[in-house]
Amino acid sequence: MADIFAKQLSPVMRTMTGPGPRPLYQAVEGRDGEALIGGARVVMAACNDYLGLSGDPRVSTAAARAVERYGTSCSGSRLIGGTLPLHEELERAVAAFLGQEAAIVTTTGHQANLALTPLFGGGDVVFSDMANHASLVDAVRAGRAESRRYRHSDMGHLERQLVAADGEAAKMIITDGLFSVEGHVCRLPELAVLARRHGARLVVDGAHDIGLLGAGGRGVAEHFGLMDEVDLCTGTFSKCFGSIGGFLAGPAEVIHFLRYTARSVIFTASMPPASAAAALAALEVIVREPERRTRVFEVARRVRTGLRALGFDTGESLTPIVPVHIGETGMCGRMWQEVLHEGVFTSVVVAPAVAEGHGLIRLSLQATHTDDHIARILGAFAAAGRRLGLIPPQPQAAPHQRLAPATAAGVS
Amino acid sequence: MADIFAKQLSPVMRTMTGPGPRPLYQAVEGRDGEALIGGARVVMAACNDYLGLSGDPRVSTAAARAVERYGTSCSGSRLIGGTLPLHEELERAVAAFLGQEAAIVTTTGHQANLALTPLFGGGDVVFSDMANHASLVDAVRAGRAESRRYRHSDMGHLERQLVAADGEAAKMIITDGLFSVEGHVCRLPELAVLARRHGARLVVDGAHDIGLLGAGGRGVAEHFGLMDEVDLCTGTFSKCFGSIGGFLAGPAEVIHFLRYTARSVIFTASMPPASAAAALAALEVIVREPERRTRVFEVARRVRTGLRALGFDTGESLTPIVPVHIGETGMCGRMWQEVLHEGVFTSVVVAPAVAEGHGLIRLSLQATHTDDHIARILGAFAAAGRRLGLIPPQPQAAPHQRLAPATAAGVS
Repeated sequence: MADIFAKQLSPVMRTMTGPGPRPLYQAVEGRDGEALIGGARVVMAACNDYLGLSGDPRVSTAAARAVERYGTSCSGSRLIGGTLPLHEELERAVAAFLGQEAAIVTTTGHQANLALTPLFGGGDVVFSDMANHASLVDAVRAGRAESRRYRHSDMGHLERQLVAADGEAAKMIITDGLFSVEGHVCRLPELAVLARRHGARLVVDGAHDIGLLGAGGRGVAEHFGLMDEVDLCTGTFSKCFGSIGGFLAGPAEVIHFLRYTARSVIFTASMPPASAAAALAALEVIVREPERRTRVFEVARRVRTGLRALGFDTGESLTPIVPVHIGETGMCGRMWQEVLHEGVFTSVVVAPAVAEGHGLIRLSLQATHTDDHIARILGAFAAAGRRLGLIPPQPQAAPHQRLAPATAAGVS
Repeated sequence: MADIFAKQLSPVMRTMTGPGPRPLYQAVEGRDGEALIGGARVVMAACNDYLGLSGDPRVSTAAARAVERYGTSCSGSRLIGGTLPLHEELERAVAAFLGQEAAIVTTTGHQANLALTPLFGGGDVVFSDMANHASLVDAVRAGRAESRRYRHSDMGHLERQLVAADGEAAKMIITDGLFSVEGHVCRLPELAVLARRHGARLVVDGAHDIGLLGAGGRGVAEHFGLMDEVDLCTGTFSKCFGSIGGFLAGPAEVIHFLRYTARSVIFTASMPPASAAAALAALEVIVREPERRTRVFEVARRVRTGLRALGFDTGESLTPIVPVHIGETGMCGRMWQEVLHEGVFTSVVVAPAVAEGHGLIRLSLQATHTDDHIARILGAFAAAGRRLGLIPPQPQAAPHQRLAPATAAGVS
């Protein structure tokens, strides 16, 4: 008889799981833009704590006080015994921040997206960007609605599918706000027009953009001045908020319905007190300190400019997620190792997450990165890239770019 | 056009969602067997922190120190940037504790069960107890294996299904260790025999029993002396461990495979440092202080004996989960309100979680419940039950039971 445990990783995955420093499951202790890896101190450029709040003393103090007051767990689901007044306070704060009627907080951001499933009823149609986060894909799969996926950011493809589905079916368009592999934002203005024209609800996952984009940190909707066009948004506290947990914010009736029907809310222990308190403290900082957003965009701009000057292809990103396009999987792995050898921890995105031959090194930048960190990142990419023959032997400016002095210094 | 947001709660659910103190989503601040509800102090009997560790100073101190050292979040998935040496230490400790080769920790227990999905391949067959936790049901649904559900604890029904599926298919039997609605354990000895006879892997979800059952707290497998018969177990840190997060423990190759394939592991931020440190500290207490298990079983025995003496039906439970069978949904709601009015917060389980007419009030007892708490629980059930005519007007001993003096005092 066959053994249900006898499962094998794919060949590509097996190449990523060897011993030694490796891109996946490498143990790191990250803090304030740096990380310890087996005792060595490196620049941390693979952490999504864009505003650097997980190490902020106001956030940490709030967490420590919550442990003291409430203990380390509620040991119950939100539904039964696991709701603190603190959870309700956080929900009111999130709803107010995002200009929505109500919000529910969940134990992880992944579970926030899974909580959309009860909205996907039989006969409904859901239109999803093919590059949406896995948790949105899973939420749709678990529902009963018909799923239609449009090519990444291809508004023509989406429109043709909407037209084909016109009629009685209830519709939803669902998209990441900021796509996390290549760091570009969704085409919200066009999505809003299409949603309105075809009577579809527009749902945006703000995991990477809420806290980061928009003058007030309200995400891609604020960035485009379209706060009223997003019907419901989801998000996470594990990135800009420097905590853990997630949320859904939208019309009060919808949030109320999901509270009692979403299996990822009902059948899981609630957000621990420390995480809820940290998220609430972080939200205050997000509102009060726009300079953190300014700083991380400045860091990203300088890193991007410097990498391009070196001869790297950083794609279309204008955000703190900076892709460095490398190519085939083996070369991505070697480049990751060489960059780490030069003192910078990055992440690597290869097939099957992207098409084979389109692998990349991804940099996630933080407001806590210093000018010295920027210089070390650029220095590491220069040395590693030259060693592997990915860039010319000497730094050269791209035809249409001028280097800012600080960046040039960083590269030299 | 129809609106995808226009979803309605079921009529039963609507009756549970009114204003005022209510069984679902009631905000409570629980601690050490008590809880604050809107300023009033009550006995907390709806918390699954059976050993009372969420308020233990050793556990809280470990959490607070982790916040100080690592901050409030790793802000990355376990796969990329979100693995601390602390996560690896916790994994080794969990594997050693459960006598398994390896373990992986997850951000919630719900996500630990969802992480089983990659094992459910096309052509495989999974046999599940119909009363299994929702997260196991969802894990099977998301997989490609054929799903066969057997009637709750009905070994004959399971065996007939196993026989019918004999042949080449790889098989798994999956069960809760301790069923959380009525508080009884799975029939592990018979499950082990059937699994062996039919070449099926045996997987046990120890969410409620690991920490609680067995001389060393190793769960239902230790309780039955069958540690070697369970092929893989899952569990949570949100109950006996007084923290949050979950785990899977089993053969090293299976755990390795799941690390790179389970979407609920890969696509979620990792367990926050405070929760990992709390779980590790709790594990030490679980190993060193068996007296906590003795105490919570003693509390449960006295509560059960007292309730039966009053005339309540507490079913078959021999664990700290004590069901009090009431009947139809409306009466369950009234009983819950009356018991709360008398100073005890409980949970209520009604249709559709159980068949209509078989609703119950559930008590979750804790090692931190004092003799005074026991007396107050019994006093509340006596007063509420008499007021609603659910029990006779005077306490009466059940025919074959004698009351211990302390219990009798509690009831009077």
